[in-house]
Amino acid sequence: MGRNAPVRFRILIKLKKFVLMPDSFKGTMSSAEICSIMDGAIKAVLPAAEIRRIPVADGGEGSVDAFLLALGGEKVYETVSGPFGDEMVSYYGLIDGGATAVVEMAACAGLPLAEGRADPEKTTTYGVGQLILAAARRGAEHIIVGLGGSATNDGGCGAAAAAGVRFFNSVGEQFVPVGGTLSDISSIDVSGFDAALKGVEITAMCDIDNPLFGPDGAAYIFGPQKGADAYMVKFLDKGLRNLDERIKGSLGISVSAMPGAGAAGGMGAGMAAFFGAKLKMGIEVVLDAVRFDEAISGADLILTGEGKIDGQSLHGKVVVGVARRAKNSGVPVAAIVGDIDMAAKGAYSEGVAGIFSINTLAQDFKISKLRARDDLAFTVENLIRFLRAYKSTPRINGRVC
Amino acid sequence: MGRNAPVRFRILIKLKKFVLMPDSFKGTMSSAEICSIMDGAIKAVLPAAEIRRIPVADGGEGSVDAFLLALGGEKVYETVSGPFGDEMVSYYGLIDGGATAVVEMAACAGLPLAEGRADPEKTTTYGVGQLILAAARRGAEHIIVGLGGSATNDGGCGAAAAAGVRFFNSVGEQFVPVGGTLSDISSIDVSGFDAALKGVEITAMCDIDNPLFGPDGAAYIFGPQKGADAYMVKFLDKGLRNLDERIKGSLGISVSAMPGAGAAGGMGAGMAAFFGAKLKMGIEVVLDAVRFDEAISGADLILTGEGKIDGQSLHGKVVVGVARRAKNSGVPVAAIVGDIDMAAKGAYSEGVAGIFSINTLAQDFKISKLRARDDLAFTVENLIRFLRAYKSTPRINGRVC
Repeated sequence: MGRNAPVRFRILIKLKKFVLMPDSFKGTMSSAEICSIMDGAIKAVLPAAEIRRIPVADGGEGSVDAFLLALGGEKVYETVSGPFGDEMVSYYGLIDGGATAVVEMAACAGLPLAEGRADPEKTTTYGVGQLILAAARRGAEHIIVGLGGSATNDGGCGAAAAAGVRFFNSVGEQFVPVGGTLSDISSIDVSGFDAALKGVEITAMCDIDNPLFGPDGAAYIFGPQKGADAYMVKFLDKGLRNLDERIKGSLGISVSAMPGAGAAGGMGAGMAAFFGAKLKMGIEVVLDAVRFDEAISGADLILTGEGKIDGQSLHGKVVVGVARRAKNSGVPVAAIVGDIDMAAKGAYSEGVAGIFSINTLAQDFKISKLRARDDLAFTVENLIRFLRAYKSTPRINGRVC
Repeated sequence: MGRNAPVRFRILIKLKKFVLMPDSFKGTMSSAEICSIMDGAIKAVLPAAEIRRIPVADGGEGSVDAFLLALGGEKVYETVSGPFGDEMVSYYGLIDGGATAVVEMAACAGLPLAEGRADPEKTTTYGVGQLILAAARRGAEHIIVGLGGSATNDGGCGAAAAAGVRFFNSVGEQFVPVGGTLSDISSIDVSGFDAALKGVEITAMCDIDNPLFGPDGAAYIFGPQKGADAYMVKFLDKGLRNLDERIKGSLGISVSAMPGAGAAGGMGAGMAAFFGAKLKMGIEVVLDAVRFDEAISGADLILTGEGKIDGQSLHGKVVVGVARRAKNSGVPVAAIVGDIDMAAKGAYSEGVAGIFSINTLAQDFKISKLRARDDLAFTVENLIRFLRAYKSTPRINGRVC
């Protein structure tokens, strides 16, 4: 037989390691719940499988828990300012043996906390600054701040004030600006910025790229869902413009056009300007935090997914974020999704190996959503069964390299 | 390294051969059309793939074409009796170099041919007998007769008469019984059965297991869709009972309880009694005719499917029929389907490796059916892409046997 003759041989291959990293299915299942269902479905076929569950924090409510579920760690409770300045018990997470902290602004400035009295003119991010400071004092060298689900429009001034930044009005009086008083800022003094934060790397998770103000800015796009009417939106936008002017005047930098500056009522801008934070896509932050390359080493398959995969999904959301990072690892990525828009075909070139919908029956979403958990379990179990059957095919024509 | 130590090596495996053997998606796409779409979807990923298309004949209209598409051959046109005794041009197929013929009774006794004047009291299978005889005279050693889509309720007496069987009434007059005159049969003489049919093996394709008469019989279950009202159903059933009595009396055999005797207006019973036909599930006939074991030799994957996979599918329909036959070949079987009922999980133990729905969006069937072709193409292309990515994974832990 010649050296290059094709070799026919039998291979028995064991499927053994899987990495789960799905986005939530919005309005249906959380990322953590999906991980749990996927885990059960895989184990129904392969009871001895090694499964790494990584629920994906999106920066909003539940982000601290998602990081803790993915990596283990500690949840630290702190009494801080709530959205209206009243004290409340909030929390942050410590991972990496305490070297990294995770703060979610929704935990003390979130919209559900303002339910029934939502008012983006009055709400503050002061508590978020307190949590950041507490984490730094506890020894965190890197603090991840999830921007999402906020009730605020204060441009991060509250958080900055909690960290020692001082804001003055035109008559030299110091105050803590909220959405309704951003226009009153005349000057800013950052000299009192808390020393505990020196050298601390801060990363803000932020999945939107809106600027600080203007027709695509924080007030116009996100103000209404926080309770602002058309008149208030205009007023809030004016305040954010003034904040940008004063930051330029006092700090000598401009952050208003930075993609994500308008996230969480301008919190993106404030985090960048006052805390020196980097604004990153949430999925990128999670991929780094979980040391994704190590996590998938030796894996047979990565399962990711989202409620609907479409053209939007190609812009660095979870599925494509995971696929891009896995692309050169040789570990295939399957996306388990609710709906598939045909524009999602672009995901293949980003590294998604296959896209599988959980729609088992041709029924409207208002009916099928009630079956989502069962459909997800079926779809994952079916895929694993298929791969097992496929891999254990006794006859394979292959070439050993 | 010990003899049994696991070996880590790289394998490059080329996907190259696929066998397509789907059922139709009832009311949406024919088996031949599905084969064509699957073929295109595979070639979009693997242009050099070797693809064996086997549209599955179901015994009804289009069965001759399905066999010819799957195997090649010749379509032979014959002028024979239509459902009302008027002459019409019909056809049969020759495959296997003429050794096997395929007759579909729908081609000269089908319900669409009786449109507007459907009347199971008057319609005849005489033309079917003429086609069978013509095929035998042409040299066919095996004749496959598709029972399905018939307009008749004559118990196959018309076909038998065309082949030389003589029916007499109580005053000794010879006649060709139709549904409305089955009760008039007094005796049957098979001595004139055409010599051309001696030694010819006849197989009737029949996917139902109803008996000849009674509440589950041909008249009660299928009479109404052929135009019978409640009174006529009762009358037709009485005729079928008489036919059974006369067959017993004249031929000394009873076929009325044979599963499938009630197929196609009692054609199953007539084929068995007068032609010595074996009644077989359609998929089994097709699997034999295409020499399935040879067809799948060296294949990487078999794609089958049906419009809805459910508990019914486990009873020897196409998907499970294909899977059972492929079970020991080592070639995995994927079912591409419209809807998945969870009872379909039983298909795994029958040899189905995986079940994939073409439902890409959570929408009602009346909307999604309009997208069925695109959804099918997407689903197959996606699966092939996934397998290609999966197979070309550079790192595989395996064990050579």
